[in-house]
Amino acid sequence: MSIITAVDTFDIRFPTSLELDGSDAMNPDPDYSAAYLIIRTDAGDGHEGHGFVFTIGRGNEVETAALDALRGHILGRDVETLLDDMGATWKLLAHDSQLRWLGPEKGVMHMAIGAVVNALWDLKAKRAGLPLWELLAGMTPEELVALVDFRYLTDALTPDEALTILRAAQPGRETRTATLRADGYPAYTTTPGWLGYSDEKLTRLAKEAVADGFAQIKLKVGASLEDDIRRVRTARAAVGPDIKIAVDANQRWDVQQAIDWMAHLAPYHIAWIEEPTSPDDILGHAAIARGVAPIPVATGEHVQNRVVFKQMLQAGSLQVLQIDAARVAGVNENIAILLLAAKFGVRVCPHAGGVGLCEAVQHLSMFDYIAVSGTKEGRTIEFVDHLHEHFITPVVVHDGAYWPPAAPGAGNEMLRETLAAYSFPNGPIWKEPR
Amino acid sequence: MSIITAVDTFDIRFPTSLELDGSDAMNPDPDYSAAYLIIRTDAGDGHEGHGFVFTIGRGNEVETAALDALRGHILGRDVETLLDDMGATWKLLAHDSQLRWLGPEKGVMHMAIGAVVNALWDLKAKRAGLPLWELLAGMTPEELVALVDFRYLTDALTPDEALTILRAAQPGRETRTATLRADGYPAYTTTPGWLGYSDEKLTRLAKEAVADGFAQIKLKVGASLEDDIRRVRTARAAVGPDIKIAVDANQRWDVQQAIDWMAHLAPYHIAWIEEPTSPDDILGHAAIARGVAPIPVATGEHVQNRVVFKQMLQAGSLQVLQIDAARVAGVNENIAILLLAAKFGVRVCPHAGGVGLCEAVQHLSMFDYIAVSGTKEGRTIEFVDHLHEHFITPVVVHDGAYWPPAAPGAGNEMLRETLAAYSFPNGPIWKEPR
Repeated sequence: MSIITAVDTFDIRFPTSLELDGSDAMNPDPDYSAAYLIIRTDAGDGHEGHGFVFTIGRGNEVETAALDALRGHILGRDVETLLDDMGATWKLLAHDSQLRWLGPEKGVMHMAIGAVVNALWDLKAKRAGLPLWELLAGMTPEELVALVDFRYLTDALTPDEALTILRAAQPGRETRTATLRADGYPAYTTTPGWLGYSDEKLTRLAKEAVADGFAQIKLKVGASLEDDIRRVRTARAAVGPDIKIAVDANQRWDVQQAIDWMAHLAPYHIAWIEEPTSPDDILGHAAIARGVAPIPVATGEHVQNRVVFKQMLQAGSLQVLQIDAARVAGVNENIAILLLAAKFGVRVCPHAGGVGLCEAVQHLSMFDYIAVSGTKEGRTIEFVDHLHEHFITPVVVHDGAYWPPAAPGAGNEMLRETLAAYSFPNGPIWKEPR
Repeated sequence: MSIITAVDTFDIRFPTSLELDGSDAMNPDPDYSAAYLIIRTDAGDGHEGHGFVFTIGRGNEVETAALDALRGHILGRDVETLLDDMGATWKLLAHDSQLRWLGPEKGVMHMAIGAVVNALWDLKAKRAGLPLWELLAGMTPEELVALVDFRYLTDALTPDEALTILRAAQPGRETRTATLRADGYPAYTTTPGWLGYSDEKLTRLAKEAVADGFAQIKLKVGASLEDDIRRVRTARAAVGPDIKIAVDANQRWDVQQAIDWMAHLAPYHIAWIEEPTSPDDILGHAAIARGVAPIPVATGEHVQNRVVFKQMLQAGSLQVLQIDAARVAGVNENIAILLLAAKFGVRVCPHAGGVGLCEAVQHLSMFDYIAVSGTKEGRTIEFVDHLHEHFITPVVVHDGAYWPPAAPGAGNEMLRETLAAYSFPNGPIWKEPR
C-alpha cells in the first residue's frame, strides 16, 4: 500500500508571442503555457505522475488555481485504489457537485480535472512499465468500458454498444500493433501556415514539409479573404497537386459567412475546413457542413466535453473529429469520444501543437487504431515542430509519421530545467528584459 | 474624468449545507457562495460597482482567482469611457484571446467576466441614480442593440431584427412601467420543494406558499421515482388543483430516462419539467420536449452562453427559457438572450435563489417586460426566501409578486458586515466550531 504524498502545481509560460509562432485569426499573440502538476507517492519506486492543461498565456494562473482546488481530492489517498479503478477515480473528480457547478463539465474546472486524470494515467503507465498507448491497448473491452461515464450518452451510445465495438476490434490487435511499429501513424503539419508568416516563409516551409514526407499541410485563414486566397494559392503552388491542404478559421466566422468564404477557397482543393465557427454551435456546424460539402468540416479542439461531441455526431456537424489531449476531462473522456466516433463511423484526426499536445495525444490515436476503430484510413495527427525539446520523451516524427513511443508513461513530463526556467512570473526567462 | 482605482475581490461562503436548504438530486450539500468584487473610482461621488458569481462552495476560490485575472483589464481606465460604451467594454473583456482560450465563453472565466460586467452596470446605474431595470428601459433601441455581441448569432438574429423587436415595443413603455409599479411581476417559489425536506415540511411550506399568494411552486425531483410520485401527490394535495406545480430534475437524467420518469408524474398536472438532462444537450432537450409534450421543458440556469440558447430556440429544446443573472457574461449577454427569446416567441422565467440571484435577475425581467417582449404572459420569476438579509436592497416579494426596486443600482451589493463575517476561510463564521 502506498499513498499520494504531494500534488505540486506550476504556472509555466513560454514567450512565444515574440515570434508569432501560433498566430491565427482569433489568437494574434499567444504565449504558449501549461498549468502543470506533479503527483508524488511514497511507493519508493521513483515514479511520478505528470499532467497539464495547455493555455495561451493570461489566465494560466486561474487554471493553476483550479489544479490546486483538486489537490484535496487525491492527496493522502491510496495509490492502488485510485489507479486500479480509473473509472471510479474519474467520477470522484468529475462528479463533485460543488466543483461541477463551475462548469458543469466545461472550461477551467473541467480541463483541470483532465490534467489530474492524465497525471494519474501517466503514473499508472510508468508503474506498469508501458507507454500509455500500449497500456490501454492491452486492456479488455470490459475494462475499457468501465473507464467511461455514460451519463448523457445513452441516447447515442450504450455500454453494450461500446462493448460490441471493442470486441469487434479484439481479433486484429496484435497485427495492428506490429503495423504501427513498422509504419508509424500518419502526421500532417501546421508549421508552414501561421497567419503571421510572410508568403516567402510559407512557401519555404511548405516545400520543406513535402520534403519531410508530410502528405498534408494546414493553413490558418479567416482574417482577410483576399490574403487567404493568395496564401492558399501560394501554398498550392509550393506543394503541387498531390499534397492535401487543410484550412483552419479558428472560430472566426458566423454560419453564412463561413459558407460564403469557403466558396472562394474551394477551387484550391481543400482537405477540410477546421473550426469555421463557435465550437458550441452544433447546429451551425451542421448548416456549414451542408453548405460547404463536399469539403469536410473538422472541429474539436475547443469542444468542451463528450456531450457536445455526441450531438455533433448526431447532427452531422463534423466529418473529421479532432480530439485534444487537454481540453476534455482526460484520457477517460477521450476514450468515450473515440467510442462515439467509432459508433458513427467518423474519422478522428487529433488536434496537437501547443505545448505537449503532440506528446500526449499520439497515445490516444495509436490506442484507437489498435483497439477501437481498428483503422488509420483517412486519419492523421497534427504536428507542429515546436517546444518538443522541453519534454523528457519528445515525439518522434519523421517520414510524415508519428512513431510509437517506447518510454513508459503518457508523454506529459517536462524537463526539470524547463519547469524552473519558464515558471511565471519568477522564472529566469520572465525576469529577462524583452 | 475619473478612473477606476481599485478592484477588490472576496471569497464569500455561507454554511448552508448544515440545513439542507438548496439540496437537490445533483447537489446534496451546497454551501451557497459568491466570488465577489467591488469596483472603486476616484470620482468622489461615493459610488461603487458590485458584482458576483454564484457558486455552491468548493472552487469559489478558483472563481475569485478568475476575477483577479480581470483586474488588469479595467484598473486605471477612464470610468466614463468604459460606462458610456458598455458594448465595447463587454468585448474588451470577452474577446481577450488569451482568456478566451480558457472557455471559450463558458465556465469559470466567462462567469467572472459576467461579474465584472454586472459590477460595471451596478456602478453605471448608481451614477445615473436609477435602478438597473429603469436605466435599461430608458435606453433607445439603437443603444440597446449596441450592447449586444452578435457574433455567432446572425443565423438566428441579426442586429436589424433586434432593432425591429425593440422598436415594436417602444410605444407601450410608459404604460407598462405604470403597470409594473401597480401590479409587480409574478413570482413563484421553490422554498417548499427541496429534496432534503420531509413530507410534513413540504406540506406546511406548500400551504404557506399558497397563503402568501404564489400561483406556482416547484419541487426538486430525480433521486427516487417512488419518492417523487409521493412528493408530487403530497404537494398537489396541499395546494389544491389551481396552483401550478413545476418540477426540477437538476440534470439528473439521460434522454429516455427523462421521458419515462415524467410519464409517471404527468397525471399530477406538471407546469414544466426543468433541467431534465445535461444543459449542454440541445438535441437531447429537443427529444425530451417531444417525448413529454404537452409538458413544457424549462432550462437555462446552467446554459453557458447565448450560442447554446440560440440553438435551443432553433431546435425547440425549451418552451420556458430560464436566464440566470450570474452564469453568462452579465447584463449584455442576457439582453442578447432576451432578444433571442423574443424573436422565437418563447417565454422567459428566470432562475433565481442561490445568493443574490433574485436581487439581480428581477431587473432583467422587468426591463424585458417594458422594452423587449412587452408581456408578462406566462412569465414568472423564481423566488427562494433565503439569504436576502445580506443585501443592501433585498428583494420585495409579497402577494405572489416581485415589486420593482427603487434604489439605484443593479441589486448586487452585499452588506459590509456580511463580506467580513462570511469571508472564507478566515471570516468569523468559518472560524466557529461546527
